[in-house]
Amino acid sequence: MRTYVLDAGNKKPLYEQLYHAVKEDILAGRIPGGEKLPSKRALAEHLNISRVTVETAYEQLLAEGYVISRPRSGYYAQSLPTLPKAIPEQPSAVFDAAPSLPSASAGHFPFSVWARLMRGVLLDHRDQLLQPPPNLGLAELRQAIARQLRRSRGFDPDPGCIVIGAGAEYLYNILIQLLGREHRYGLEDPGHRKIARVYEANGVSVAAVSLDEQGIDMQALRSSGAAVMHLSPGHQYPTGIVTPIGRRGELMAWLAEQPDRWLIEDDYDSEFRFSGRPIPTMFSMDPVGRVIYMNTFSKTITPALRISYMILPKALMAQYHEKLGFYSCTVPSFEQLTLAKFLDDGYFDKHVSRMRRHYRVLRDEFLSQLRASSCADRITVQGHEAGLHMLLRLQTPLSDEETQTRLAQAGVRAAALRQYEMCPAAEGQQGIMVVSYSDLELGQLPRLIQVLEQITTQAS
Amino acid sequence: MRTYVLDAGNKKPLYEQLYHAVKEDILAGRIPGGEKLPSKRALAEHLNISRVTVETAYEQLLAEGYVISRPRSGYYAQSLPTLPKAIPEQPSAVFDAAPSLPSASAGHFPFSVWARLMRGVLLDHRDQLLQPPPNLGLAELRQAIARQLRRSRGFDPDPGCIVIGAGAEYLYNILIQLLGREHRYGLEDPGHRKIARVYEANGVSVAAVSLDEQGIDMQALRSSGAAVMHLSPGHQYPTGIVTPIGRRGELMAWLAEQPDRWLIEDDYDSEFRFSGRPIPTMFSMDPVGRVIYMNTFSKTITPALRISYMILPKALMAQYHEKLGFYSCTVPSFEQLTLAKFLDDGYFDKHVSRMRRHYRVLRDEFLSQLRASSCADRITVQGHEAGLHMLLRLQTPLSDEETQTRLAQAGVRAAALRQYEMCPAAEGQQGIMVVSYSDLELGQLPRLIQVLEQITTQAS
Repeated sequence: MRTYVLDAGNKKPLYEQLYHAVKEDILAGRIPGGEKLPSKRALAEHLNISRVTVETAYEQLLAEGYVISRPRSGYYAQSLPTLPKAIPEQPSAVFDAAPSLPSASAGHFPFSVWARLMRGVLLDHRDQLLQPPPNLGLAELRQAIARQLRRSRGFDPDPGCIVIGAGAEYLYNILIQLLGREHRYGLEDPGHRKIARVYEANGVSVAAVSLDEQGIDMQALRSSGAAVMHLSPGHQYPTGIVTPIGRRGELMAWLAEQPDRWLIEDDYDSEFRFSGRPIPTMFSMDPVGRVIYMNTFSKTITPALRISYMILPKALMAQYHEKLGFYSCTVPSFEQLTLAKFLDDGYFDKHVSRMRRHYRVLRDEFLSQLRASSCADRITVQGHEAGLHMLLRLQTPLSDEETQTRLAQAGVRAAALRQYEMCPAAEGQQGIMVVSYSDLELGQLPRLIQVLEQITTQAS
Repeated sequence: MRTYVLDAGNKKPLYEQLYHAVKEDILAGRIPGGEKLPSKRALAEHLNISRVTVETAYEQLLAEGYVISRPRSGYYAQSLPTLPKAIPEQPSAVFDAAPSLPSASAGHFPFSVWARLMRGVLLDHRDQLLQPPPNLGLAELRQAIARQLRRSRGFDPDPGCIVIGAGAEYLYNILIQLLGREHRYGLEDPGHRKIARVYEANGVSVAAVSLDEQGIDMQALRSSGAAVMHLSPGHQYPTGIVTPIGRRGELMAWLAEQPDRWLIEDDYDSEFRFSGRPIPTMFSMDPVGRVIYMNTFSKTITPALRISYMILPKALMAQYHEKLGFYSCTVPSFEQLTLAKFLDDGYFDKHVSRMRRHYRVLRDEFLSQLRASSCADRITVQGHEAGLHMLLRLQTPLSDEETQTRLAQAGVRAAALRQYEMCPAAEGQQGIMVVSYSDLELGQLPRLIQVLEQITTQAS
């Protein structure tokens, strides 16, 4: 009978030491397959340990399949295929890069209000917090969103057609599954590169659809072969184009021509229109029920909050229930309840109008300092009527990389328009920079103007 | 000049009333495309309103594209394509069905501890809560998960290879994008139907792979043409089979034969092994770096918490960074920080061992009452060594539907094994029920035994 050296002072219990020792013997072939193991009683006496210890070790070996048990006979070693030895992996250094720098806008978020609402939800909604939210999202939040859109966007969606999801990227994934992979998906060019990456990662056919000064170029759309067009007519990213009513009519006509055409209206920063009323959505003027509305709270509240939603036309909602209704909601009830209260109690409206004011003051001050500067006639500003970004067209001999570096040195995060192009224009797009308001502070403006003067002065 | 009736007592501001009136005139063709609008000054005098009011209305019409502005000339109505009128949708009745009934286990969750940790996170992590989490998830949580697995599962994963996501279904979606759509995906049959639905919704080719008493039937796997096998070797759902080491070796050999084969090890309820040590993972014995480990906190903590994770082999992790690294993390920082503390402070271990004890007492009491009952020899229990469910094989003439109804009347949620079959067996599977522990309470057992006696007595 084999002898195993067991150490009662070891941190590992005796049964575990025995289990390991026998397992190693079986794996190494020292106990060949088919051999009967000593009886529990005999081994316990031999090793001077309790029978329960042997039994526990044997049961573990049985559970993992190293031995089999034959009733009224005992335990037998299994014949095992030679298991290749695991190669220990080197720990990887691939930890994430640091998250993006704290953006200025985060400081404006009414965190103490949010924290108070969260504490209230913890106190008042214990039972709800322990249950999974309904698959489409909590009714409380879907109703609050519908009320919010009624107040701020002037349309009145059916809460039953709202689907809550953990971020816009997640919802794009779901939409591809809903609308189908056989379609070609049209994307605005230039546009948000991340959107293209989601479609590409999903392996669907993608077409870059170029823009003219009114948004989607209808000719380009028609020749692209796209059946689904993903667009942001309220304030295109990054050009800032607001699609006028005439072009919207043309898009609607295109939509109505074929039964399998769809528009995905990405209304990601519509809340930040600086004057007048918000631009009506295409969803609300859709006569054929084939515009899907999408929006997110990442831009308006904080990017740490990953709550987005889409509103489906009624017939499509029925298909959603059938095909994808099984998907669990990806947003915790806790955030959903807090956000519902934040919306219903008016904090969202207050926060958005405060931020809108903040961005407008920034924009106005920037425009006025720019006009007073020596580079006023070398810079054209575009897309600054709304949203969180604007385009600067600079007359400069510098490369876009150099311009970007100089702006970064002034603490301004900017990117060349070219970086947003899927099919880069052959020429002529140099010197157009996309600047985000959310990164700017009033105090930075004089330095920014100075840098812009330097960048453009070298033109002369 | 047209006259518009504006009402200063109306809730809508004057400019908005004017904007609507002019817009309607343009849409209806009463102001034809190309017609010059009255100057701001003239219209203001005509309507006896301020010039700013007219200007604001005109600017809104301009922004939405109903008019264009010609410098030093004025505003002109646009020629518009006829916009089809929107058909108002009937509000849909399609609200979600009620979420599943509160499960007994929810009551065992240490909610007050969780709430206290949440309040602590709110106080101490304000800045972190305002920033988006890193794409793979917070380092705090990934390290806490690695430590947890070292303690409880006996392997030592690299936190840099852990990806956090909002639920297992979300991660399945991501895995398909990572491994590729060209593969056929093998699924255990019988198995969790929802997993099949996710793969089907993604439009990838799926093969049902039948099981024998050791788990995946190797013959069936080989003839299925699957390159990726999704399996739960630790405790298969719903059969409860624990795949023994011999079969694991065969699976590893299959994996090593071709470079594009993968195993997805779904370890969804491994924490609830009732005796001995946990069964080692296949991930930890993988010599070729092609086992992906997945687990979720929905089963162990509460289904309201939608946090799951996967651990990728190092080479696959590098591919993830390249192909899918752009995806934002779908879980709020708030839940991630709270869970990290819950794990690190030992609450998770305590909760899991309390629940394990709870389920074991339930199981033991059920088995002992069953043995003492008159139907002991008509019922075989299987898969009850671990996990949150067991199989009952009943000798009964009743249909599965009838058996299920009678069990439901005793307050026990059970489902026929057949409902989990992708390719239903021609015969012989009748009378096998899957019963979940998390729905049972001790007090229900006498009634359950009584119902089982009735169900099986009718066999004689």
